[in-house]
Amino acid sequence: MEDQTLEPHPDRLLPADPGVRAIARRLHDAVAGLPIISPHGHVPARWLADDVPFADPTALLITPDHYVTRLLHATGAELSTFGVGEGPLDEARSRAAFRAVCERWGVFRGTPVRYWFENQLADIFGVGLRPAAATADRIYDAVAAALATEPFRPRALYERFGIEVLATTDDPCDDLSAHALLRDDPTWSGRVVPTFRPDRYLEAALPTWNDDVDRLAEVSGTETGDYAGFVAALEARRAFFVEHGAVSTDHAHTDTRTDPLEPHEAERVFTAARRGEVSAADATALRRHLVAEMARMSCDDGLVMTLHPAVRRNHHLPTYERYGPDVGTDIPVAVEHTDGLRPLLNRYGTHPGFHLVLFTLDETQFSREIGPLAGFYPSVYAGAPWWFLDAPDAIRRYRAAVTESAGFAKTSGFIDDTRAFCSIPARHDLSRRIDAGYVAGLVAEHRLDEDEAYEVLHDLVVTNPRKAFKL
Amino acid sequence: MEDQTLEPHPDRLLPADPGVRAIARRLHDAVAGLPIISPHGHVPARWLADDVPFADPTALLITPDHYVTRLLHATGAELSTFGVGEGPLDEARSRAAFRAVCERWGVFRGTPVRYWFENQLADIFGVGLRPAAATADRIYDAVAAALATEPFRPRALYERFGIEVLATTDDPCDDLSAHALLRDDPTWSGRVVPTFRPDRYLEAALPTWNDDVDRLAEVSGTETGDYAGFVAALEARRAFFVEHGAVSTDHAHTDTRTDPLEPHEAERVFTAARRGEVSAADATALRRHLVAEMARMSCDDGLVMTLHPAVRRNHHLPTYERYGPDVGTDIPVAVEHTDGLRPLLNRYGTHPGFHLVLFTLDETQFSREIGPLAGFYPSVYAGAPWWFLDAPDAIRRYRAAVTESAGFAKTSGFIDDTRAFCSIPARHDLSRRIDAGYVAGLVAEHRLDEDEAYEVLHDLVVTNPRKAFKL
Amino acid sequence: MEDQTLEPHPDRLLPADPGVRAIARRLHDAVAGLPIISPHGHVPARWLADDVPFADPTALLITPDHYVTRLLHATGAELSTFGVGEGPLDEARSRAAFRAVCERWGVFRGTPVRYWFENQLADIFGVGLRPAAATADRIYDAVAAALATEPFRPRALYERFGIEVLATTDDPCDDLSAHALLRDDPTWSGRVVPTFRPDRYLEAALPTWNDDVDRLAEVSGTETGDYAGFVAALEARRAFFVEHGAVSTDHAHTDTRTDPLEPHEAERVFTAARRGEVSAADATALRRHLVAEMARMSCDDGLVMTLHPAVRRNHHLPTYERYGPDVGTDIPVAVEHTDGLRPLLNRYGTHPGFHLVLFTLDETQFSREIGPLAGFYPSVYAGAPWWFLDAPDAIRRYRAAVTESAGFAKTSGFIDDTRAFCSIPARHDLSRRIDAGYVAGLVAEHRLDEDEAYEVLHDLVVTNPRKAFKL
Repeated sequence: MEDQTLEPHPDRLLPADPGVRAIARRLHDAVAGLPIISPHGHVPARWLADDVPFADPTALLITPDHYVTRLLHATGAELSTFGVGEGPLDEARSRAAFRAVCERWGVFRGTPVRYWFENQLADIFGVGLRPAAATADRIYDAVAAALATEPFRPRALYERFGIEVLATTDDPCDDLSAHALLRDDPTWSGRVVPTFRPDRYLEAALPTWNDDVDRLAEVSGTETGDYAGFVAALEARRAFFVEHGAVSTDHAHTDTRTDPLEPHEAERVFTAARRGEVSAADATALRRHLVAEMARMSCDDGLVMTLHPAVRRNHHLPTYERYGPDVGTDIPVAVEHTDGLRPLLNRYGTHPGFHLVLFTLDETQFSREIGPLAGFYPSVYAGAPWWFLDAPDAIRRYRAAVTESAGFAKTSGFIDDTRAFCSIPARHDLSRRIDAGYVAGLVAEHRLDEDEAYEVLHDLVVTNPRKAFKL
Repeated sequence: MEDQTLEPHPDRLLPADPGVRAIARRLHDAVAGLPIISPHGHVPARWLADDVPFADPTALLITPDHYVTRLLHATGAELSTFGVGEGPLDEARSRAAFRAVCERWGVFRGTPVRYWFENQLADIFGVGLRPAAATADRIYDAVAAALATEPFRPRALYERFGIEVLATTDDPCDDLSAHALLRDDPTWSGRVVPTFRPDRYLEAALPTWNDDVDRLAEVSGTETGDYAGFVAALEARRAFFVEHGAVSTDHAHTDTRTDPLEPHEAERVFTAARRGEVSAADATALRRHLVAEMARMSCDDGLVMTLHPAVRRNHHLPTYERYGPDVGTDIPVAVEHTDGLRPLLNRYGTHPGFHLVLFTLDETQFSREIGPLAGFYPSVYAGAPWWFLDAPDAIRRYRAAVTESAGFAKTSGFIDDTRAFCSIPARHDLSRRIDAGYVAGLVAEHRLDEDEAYEVLHDLVVTNPRKAFKL
Repeated sequence: MEDQTLEPHPDRLLPADPGVRAIARRLHDAVAGLPIISPHGHVPARWLADDVPFADPTALLITPDHYVTRLLHATGAELSTFGVGEGPLDEARSRAAFRAVCERWGVFRGTPVRYWFENQLADIFGVGLRPAAATADRIYDAVAAALATEPFRPRALYERFGIEVLATTDDPCDDLSAHALLRDDPTWSGRVVPTFRPDRYLEAALPTWNDDVDRLAEVSGTETGDYAGFVAALEARRAFFVEHGAVSTDHAHTDTRTDPLEPHEAERVFTAARRGEVSAADATALRRHLVAEMARMSCDDGLVMTLHPAVRRNHHLPTYERYGPDVGTDIPVAVEHTDGLRPLLNRYGTHPGFHLVLFTLDETQFSREIGPLAGFYPSVYAGAPWWFLDAPDAIRRYRAAVTESAGFAKTSGFIDDTRAFCSIPARHDLSRRIDAGYVAGLVAEHRLDEDEAYEVLHDLVVTNPRKAFKL
């Protein structure tokens, strides 16, 4: 069989109807060149601080990307085949892993993984061949050759991608040294901001919690022996993050309840937890209270608060035990916001300057809870469809579900939330194309005039994320 | 910048595909002129009874419409800016409020609020300008001038809108004097029917409950000291409503459980509640029992029973405390019908003549519960998509989710459920357009012949609401 | 009025957009003639074993089809009108029942029942008239005349339909004599396989349970006095099913929890249940444990495990008491898989050769749980949309919700799950048409190349069901 070519079509992802497509194409053209704003993600700041070349195609594109490896695992391959948990691979194994992906290319049909990957290959690496057993080595060689050159070093790619701001996700005790290096580097003109992610410090039943809280004391220079000190230490670290450019905090717990505790209750549970004697129920109560406390602190220090709930982490324990977290075995669960966030919103929902961006993996919330909440509370923004929902059809459903009650202004703009650096342009462009198609549909149905449609697209790409994340 | 014009397109809201649109246009043309049947809503009967001119554009179109004000609030404006909670506004403040809306017109992009509002302006008031800061005063003037003329008095508009029947929503103790005035007025040929809405009388834990039940005794002339008297008083008031033309009752509680209590249990809880000593759990149990009792009464007196559950009222208490209810701070919650309604349906679900119309704000129920229930129980009708779901994309989802298991015959027909009188024609027309598009899609995919499609559209517009609501 | 004709359009169910339709038509053409693989359904094996002619049009097409009768019931007709619960009908009553359906033909507009029924009439029976009061007798006569001929006997239809394999659903104590007859009949070249459906044996609180477990002992020749014997008896019956060609087991319980019990706990609850002294909670715990045990047995004997949860059976008890089960009064409920299946998947989810096919009536699970689970666990397949969701719009939603996280490879292929034998070709063809349309949409939006689209369609029709069900 002849090799299949790879040529991303200029009209890809635009609606099939010729009339709507023509409008969508005009709208997309108008925003295709705008900068990328990435206010939430997982690319390490160290990559840009040190600017060392990427190791090899597999280590860059495959091993760390659980979107890729989980689906291959689902069709029968071991995660280790793709380098997961294997440490640095030698050239032969790296190449074999890359080939193993290309051979199974059909598995990705219909998924955004396929779309992102092919667009990276074509647009960034100039590859013109569709991945397959017969083309794997040539593609590997082309990518490897490119990675050895100056234009493919992290900072050069950051420039080329047109990134205006890139957020990382960081432990409260992180020294943010990579961020500081970048800030102080006169040759660097980009913007990489940390994000305060305190989950583990809020879950007093975790076996690591006491050590974490000890470390928090050490790093913050604030005693965490009692509840007041613990709160002060968190506040100190938030201030440290703000000094280093942070604009937001992120929170990912099982539920989104935010019931406050009476001060003496919070003190009692905290003290018991410090003695290692906390009940599961008390630890949960304390965490819900602390999430509300994070909102209070946001009112004080201005950090935007984002929630990424509704996922059972490490669903398959044997995989977690062998490979650790973030390897594709997290599975969503249902969640609810209306009652859960009510205590928080009653206290802080109309506080001037407070921003709360709500993400979910439970689509039922879009029209039932998130749209209505964002359509009333000035603080609430509907977060972009995330993770399993960051895909063409899901984004369309999101817009159709949220827009009618919250409009466009109360949506966060696109969030890539990725650790796959080279996929960032493809992900943002996918979002722009799908949004262009949705808005073009409104124009075609005479629900919006075309002059306004241009403004909407521009807002979604740059104005909304700048506003929601105070950039 | 030049002012933008406002010209609703004749094909607005019809599907973009030219072939489907042509069919949809024919279907819409066939029903566009049919009368408006509005079997559930919130327009005060007093307006039509007294027929006094509307005060001013803001008082008519903005202040009472929480769809408009909630979204402006969400983008940072105080509700008071738009006259909410401010009492009658003088001309300067009314004009300023109107301008404040026009200036923020972009907030409504993609929402039905925008659609309804623009269609009112164009079709009812002949306004040809898109709202904006620059056009606000001219639009205000045009609307104000119109409102001062005879053709814009309530009865004239009722005629002009082609309303066949309009339902109000009323407290069981209401004397229905406005309805009586209309009924006895030989110069009035319309039909305005009350709706029996007893929620507060069924919730024994409300602080107002004992006073309400006292008033019920007074108004009904029936002692409400014991449970039997209470039930008799409710029956008496239902009979009074029937005499005044009522065709339905409406119920909006947190859940839809309908578990019956043993008579002595109902008596025990009622008696405790009358002493002010009811537990929250008992009050809930009594309410669930009473909702089932309402179904029993419907079997006796023929009133159609409608349920509007799944909403947390007054979610933001500070707003409620300042502005009262119905100002846009109600937020939906998940709800379930299959188990909750089972006791009621096992008793009354096949009773001849019993009708139960199920609304929801939780879309997940459409294909999972409401379609299957309406597709088996002769009494059950799938209520139209309501409130946050009364919008183009949501109505399409509703039809796609309900039709395959319940067909068209078991859907209620459109319900506007509005207090925004002038939006009624635009709301009904929106529904007709979206339904025309959905049915045209079936024709285009050869799932329905076009001769039948005309019948379906006609049924949805007039036959179904007449049948579901016994009009 | 002239009689309306019935002529299924060659492009029926394909997308309306001309460009997408042209692609979809090519894709459908490529798979329209492929064999039918039906790995889960309810057609009695006896029909094919005995090959006796079908009795009459009503007994074949109407009375046993709860999709047809439930919707007629919902619009006011008694189930008995259509022969439900009436035993064999004489010719006059059979004809009257058939006419009663045709008279109410409009009730089915927009439903798949209409589509299946009309396609059966046209394609199998050569009827060219749309059902209506005026055409009912002629259609009845045409169908009755056909049924009296050789080409309409069950085996001839099986051949004509192009069925490659047909699964039945059977009680563990069934002697599978019809399957044995077919297996041993040299004149029969089809493949009819039993399915092991042990629900009632796993629910120890059912009043029939002790008798069932006694019968299990008798049939298996294994004592079921203690828990170990009970398990051994189930294993023996599974082995018997395997000998008779079974490829799968099926399980339909209220929830899908699979928490294991300690051996002594399982023994304790089983023993109490055998004494008739089990609590509802203990019976539920035992059932959850036993469902996980079924997965363990599947790892041993290779039977594919399928789950069909999320339905409240016999919702309307008066109907159940008069007519029995499976007459259309089952109503779906919400269900969850992420936490419920976690114990089972942690034990067996990556076992080589274990297959678990997940069906649901709760669409919210598709993107939230089923897609992500099938996109990680090699054992998990996303079952086709089932029952109320086996319909054009619902199948489209399923593909849009599942494909982006699980691709195509981890979906089961179409499952007809029907007892309406003559509807099988129409049901499979409907699925092929809708899938062709979905995949054509991907091609039109340049998300998939057309050469791959042919492979995808072919996989969905034959490769996937063969693989998921080990055929």
